[in-house]
Amino acid sequence: MTHASELVVLLVVFAGAHLGAAAARIAKLPSVVGELLIGVLLGSSCLGWIQPSTVLNTLSTIGATFLLFTVGLESPLKRLLSVGKLGSSVAVFGVIVPFIAAYLLVRSNGAGTTNHLYIACCFIATSAGITARVLHDEGALGLLESKVILAAAVIDDVLAMLILVGVSALAAGGASPMALILPFAEAGLFLTLTIAVGPLIVKRLSRSNTGIGPLSPFVMAMVLCLGLAVTAEMTGLAAIVGAFLAGMLFADHPQSKEIEKQVQPLLVFLTPFFFVLTGAMVDLRSISSIQAALLLVIYVVVAVVSKLVGSGFAAAPLGVRSAMIIGVGMVPRGEVGVIIAGSALAAGAIQQKDYSLLVLMSIITTIIAPPALRILLQSVPRGPKSELPSGSLVAVDEAGLT
Amino acid sequence: MTHASELVVLLVVFAGAHLGAAAARIAKLPSVVGELLIGVLLGSSCLGWIQPSTVLNTLSTIGATFLLFTVGLESPLKRLLSVGKLGSSVAVFGVIVPFIAAYLLVRSNGAGTTNHLYIACCFIATSAGITARVLHDEGALGLLESKVILAAAVIDDVLAMLILVGVSALAAGGASPMALILPFAEAGLFLTLTIAVGPLIVKRLSRSNTGIGPLSPFVMAMVLCLGLAVTAEMTGLAAIVGAFLAGMLFADHPQSKEIEKQVQPLLVFLTPFFFVLTGAMVDLRSISSIQAALLLVIYVVVAVVSKLVGSGFAAAPLGVRSAMIIGVGMVPRGEVGVIIAGSALAAGAIQQKDYSLLVLMSIITTIIAPPALRILLQSVPRGPKSELPSGSLVAVDEAGLT
Repeated sequence: MTHASELVVLLVVFAGAHLGAAAARIAKLPSVVGELLIGVLLGSSCLGWIQPSTVLNTLSTIGATFLLFTVGLESPLKRLLSVGKLGSSVAVFGVIVPFIAAYLLVRSNGAGTTNHLYIACCFIATSAGITARVLHDEGALGLLESKVILAAAVIDDVLAMLILVGVSALAAGGASPMALILPFAEAGLFLTLTIAVGPLIVKRLSRSNTGIGPLSPFVMAMVLCLGLAVTAEMTGLAAIVGAFLAGMLFADHPQSKEIEKQVQPLLVFLTPFFFVLTGAMVDLRSISSIQAALLLVIYVVVAVVSKLVGSGFAAAPLGVRSAMIIGVGMVPRGEVGVIIAGSALAAGAIQQKDYSLLVLMSIITTIIAPPALRILLQSVPRGPKSELPSGSLVAVDEAGLT
Repeated sequence: MTHASELVVLLVVFAGAHLGAAAARIAKLPSVVGELLIGVLLGSSCLGWIQPSTVLNTLSTIGATFLLFTVGLESPLKRLLSVGKLGSSVAVFGVIVPFIAAYLLVRSNGAGTTNHLYIACCFIATSAGITARVLHDEGALGLLESKVILAAAVIDDVLAMLILVGVSALAAGGASPMALILPFAEAGLFLTLTIAVGPLIVKRLSRSNTGIGPLSPFVMAMVLCLGLAVTAEMTGLAAIVGAFLAGMLFADHPQSKEIEKQVQPLLVFLTPFFFVLTGAMVDLRSISSIQAALLLVIYVVVAVVSKLVGSGFAAAPLGVRSAMIIGVGMVPRGEVGVIIAGSALAAGAIQQKDYSLLVLMSIITTIIAPPALRILLQSVPRGPKSELPSGSLVAVDEAGLT
């Protein structure tokens, strides 16, 4: 009886999220857009049915942690190294141009450098899952453009995490040189140790049994995921950086595909709490003034144009149409942008107002990119619908996540 | 940063539970014993590292809910109806005798009828998962005795839930006849409606798609599980009764095996919170007096003897040795006894002291039955190790649950 109200809230969030995802699918939108909009509807701006609580916050944090673990799981170092120059430069320019553009846009808002850098961080991510879903639905996964987009999106995630490390270290440091160096040293030590020791641990673990018993790879992966998330937080980084690293480490595990499959039901259950709560924390009143609405439009335009220019420029050698496809494919910020905004809000680096704008910007880029990508793809001649090579990004989306 | 401490607690509980389960496996004990004992170690009686909090309580409630859903999923009505007279009478006598024995034992403790009935409820359950694991390890699943035990254990779960419905309705009612009838009517209406309408809903759902997308059977099953758990609570029943019913309804779904597989990772992640928190809530000081320790011994003796007598008597037609095997196989109370005790504590029907005793009784029956069963089985001639017919109960155990 004591937990009745908690269970009711869980039911409302879970069922609401999946209804939203189903509605989004019918409207040919990514599921994540449906879940976020259901959150806006259930949140304080509209119905006011759900409020942030310790329980919802924790479920949402675990959801984001496992989600970033899965994103990491899809980013094996080997694949990153094999994409060649084109994928890398599409990724690098697709990160640098939006970062600089966003920084220039907000640097005169009077809120300090930490605020500017965190906001700029939210502009750099690319949601590989959403684009992969559209490419899959259009049977375009075999195209060179698709391969470049998917590889670049994965590199983008790694770069976004690295930049987030830098920005949080900067934010933790103060004015004095020593206070600036210490957080960097801590974060650097954490990253170095993880990258140096992690693969050895994972390699040792890969000799253990299968199944999902007490010491199975799945359980070990979750322990490492939670462990690195906690350690990342302790060294001043975002928990999601640790979870992402844990995923990357397990990407080379012989049973990584099996682990990824076993994580899916957890994502299905937990990520709705993250997306619905994120939507619920968007305060629509914060964009009710004409200035704020205008600022949102400017954010969206900068987010779209900077990716088109950055990634498109890097892909120019493939011709204008291919460059356009790649540029548009990199536009959706999706869950990664939203997660970075959440971690910036938790770190106290941005205001509620900034948060609402950044989440809405992420939602809008995620809504507008897929139809544009579809139109562009329809002009490209190609063979029969192909299967997704690694299968995994679409699996994440089919779990109602992206 | 805000959730750092929560994530640390989650990590400690999760990693601790799986270490405990692994240690229990090495000691040839059921995993659930290891998880419960780790809880006792981490709880206020010993280390004091974890305290009940809203977050832990909620995760624990969700864990118990999904666990009972899985138990229900393994109890299709068809299988229950097909076990014949022997399985049914083993189950019925294995429920009635312990219930009456426990009631007679505690009825003079001065705490009122509701207390007596709830305590008696904790004596009736049988943990099918633990016995199935031992039978599997001993290659004895092909024996007639094993089939009787597994069928009877499943019927036991259903009977335990029905008696729990009756007891909670009695507890909700007061002294006046009307106040007594209303909760029964409410609970009866809930059960009737669920059993009448539920199969139609599940049948309709069985036409939907596969996978784990927004409207997949897995998501629907979870919505129904949470929905019936909430409804059960609203009608004064335990949430686990609703979850169990939802599982039973989905047991006839064409994809019930698939759903069961998809629920496993959720159980692996969530049930440790339930078992560790249960262990942590056991106050060892409550049995530090000689009287209390003696009472615990009496509880255990009554729990063991009443099952041996009740189930063994019903199995007498098979001969003494078979009756002994069946009687011992029905002894472990395991997670079902613990869950009923928790729901009694939450309903305010039993005291912390009773709770500690009942959980310890459940743990001890679960520790002593497997070795005894092994010794008895070693005297039985039989063929090569067989596969578990339905596979599922062992799957639950391999998830570190039983």
